[in-house]
Amino acid sequence: MTVKITTHEQAKTLIETHDTFLFDCDGVIWIGDELLPHVKETIGLLQALGKTPIFVSNNSTKARTDYVAKLAGFGIGGIETSQIINSAYSTAIYVHEVLRLPKDQKVWVLGQSGITAELQLLGYETVTFDDLEAAAAARGAAPLAMEDVHELVDPGVGCVVVGLDFQLTYLKLGVTLQHLLDGKTPFIATNIDSTFPFKSTRLPGAGAIVETVAFASGREPDAICGKPNAGMMDSILAHHRLDKTRTVMVGDRLNTDMRFGSANGIDTLLVLTGIDREASVAAGHDDVSFYANALGDLYTLYNSV
Amino acid sequence: MTVKITTHEQAKTLIETHDTFLFDCDGVIWIGDELLPHVKETIGLLQALGKTPIFVSNNSTKARTDYVAKLAGFGIGGIETSQIINSAYSTAIYVHEVLRLPKDQKVWVLGQSGITAELQLLGYETVTFDDLEAAAAARGAAPLAMEDVHELVDPGVGCVVVGLDFQLTYLKLGVTLQHLLDGKTPFIATNIDSTFPFKSTRLPGAGAIVETVAFASGREPDAICGKPNAGMMDSILAHHRLDKTRTVMVGDRLNTDMRFGSANGIDTLLVLTGIDREASVAAGHDDVSFYANALGDLYTLYNSV
Repeated sequence: MTVKITTHEQAKTLIETHDTFLFDCDGVIWIGDELLPHVKETIGLLQALGKTPIFVSNNSTKARTDYVAKLAGFGIGGIETSQIINSAYSTAIYVHEVLRLPKDQKVWVLGQSGITAELQLLGYETVTFDDLEAAAAARGAAPLAMEDVHELVDPGVGCVVVGLDFQLTYLKLGVTLQHLLDGKTPFIATNIDSTFPFKSTRLPGAGAIVETVAFASGREPDAICGKPNAGMMDSILAHHRLDKTRTVMVGDRLNTDMRFGSANGIDTLLVLTGIDREASVAAGHDDVSFYANALGDLYTLYNSV
Repeated sequence: MTVKITTHEQAKTLIETHDTFLFDCDGVIWIGDELLPHVKETIGLLQALGKTPIFVSNNSTKARTDYVAKLAGFGIGGIETSQIINSAYSTAIYVHEVLRLPKDQKVWVLGQSGITAELQLLGYETVTFDDLEAAAAARGAAPLAMEDVHELVDPGVGCVVVGLDFQLTYLKLGVTLQHLLDGKTPFIATNIDSTFPFKSTRLPGAGAIVETVAFASGREPDAICGKPNAGMMDSILAHHRLDKTRTVMVGDRLNTDMRFGSANGIDTLLVLTGIDREASVAAGHDDVSFYANALGDLYTLYNSV
């Protein structure tokens, strides 16, 4: 049964029966650079009641500290880095704790610094095309070209990670493919979002980049570390000792956020400030436990006696 | 029934019962920069007997005149540009004759000059990211960046063509995606080869690039103009008045060349100088009418009386 949260009692019960609130960010907490109404007050209320907010994002291009800073900029303080889980962090945890990749094996990364930073924090040596390019430039070599493809393969690479890369080039894809052609080196995707929202349009998402090397290599990723895939929930559960029955996933998308919570056995709360609308859930939806017009309603309803 | 060509009579009959010979190039005529044995003599024999050789390639990056020149360099003369059909040409023919795109609509091309050249020969105005970049540079503007994505959309574009592009970048993919997001602008793929053979390895093929924008846009190409898809056969048939019953497709790959011939109702001849081996066909194969150790066998067997 899908319940719409519209009364003080419902909001109070929802809050009292859960200890951990997993929040999708864009469309729930903010839209672009604008904080949504009463979100700051809602997070403050949860913190005052001893609840733990955790912010969960598929974006692998930013560091977790960037999220802490963005939240602080909106006046949402008291958030530790450990309360941020993005797909870059989730990927690093996956490589370390699930794949248990030995530290003497390098990780080839097609993606941005969000990913390499998290892997390095866990003690991994990363290699990117940009590293190879910088090394070639440092020794005065000509810029890397297709002819160099054989030399660009690093035999020390034990894992391939693919995510969103705004500096994608054909040669980056080509060298990544070389590392997948043996059919054995683990192939990890940060997430498989088809698009990336940008300035009121959409650009290709991590999933579109993953598709390229998947199609060329004839392989599917061995693990996907973003919502709605289990890899990300495994990472969250590994790092916060959560009681699943007292955790709720709050998001604005049925096919990622709600699926993510539901498929992993936790309650879900859909808010209507982002992608999906009331018509999709009013008649009941298997993946949605609760829904509300906005996250801020939790605060306003809780205080409306 | 799959017949292996091993005798004079068989070779003579095969030649006498066909007027047009469609040849895949790499693995049949040449391998890289080396002509295969007795291929020159075989083509010469066919020409002397009044047969028409047509060379069919999925490579969209080269102009048809490059093929004529390469063949001439091997001593294979008397080949007209009209006897070369690559996926760039096939795509241009498709846009012109099947899609019947009005000439006042531009074609957005993600791919190399092989494609734009063929479209321009048929009277189309093409737009590529490189054109936009050159225009920005000419007016002294800053290099194009993600922030410019909205301005880079050309409302005059009536068709999107995607093929292999060695200068692929994220922004090129992003602008191509913008032209597909309306869900209506025709989306044509030159070909969907997963990889591109290069220096004893494989790089991502046109199909891998097509996959990126297909996944991001949630669309499949409306037409695929390379082997084994019907678009290329339609182009060949449109430009040479061929009797299908007297045409044979000669190739080295079961899943492209042989499928291409068989699915389009013409005879096929597999040669074992490229990808597929005798074990795959000796017991019979639905897509293969005839097979031979090498194309050159047609010449040596024909002359062995």
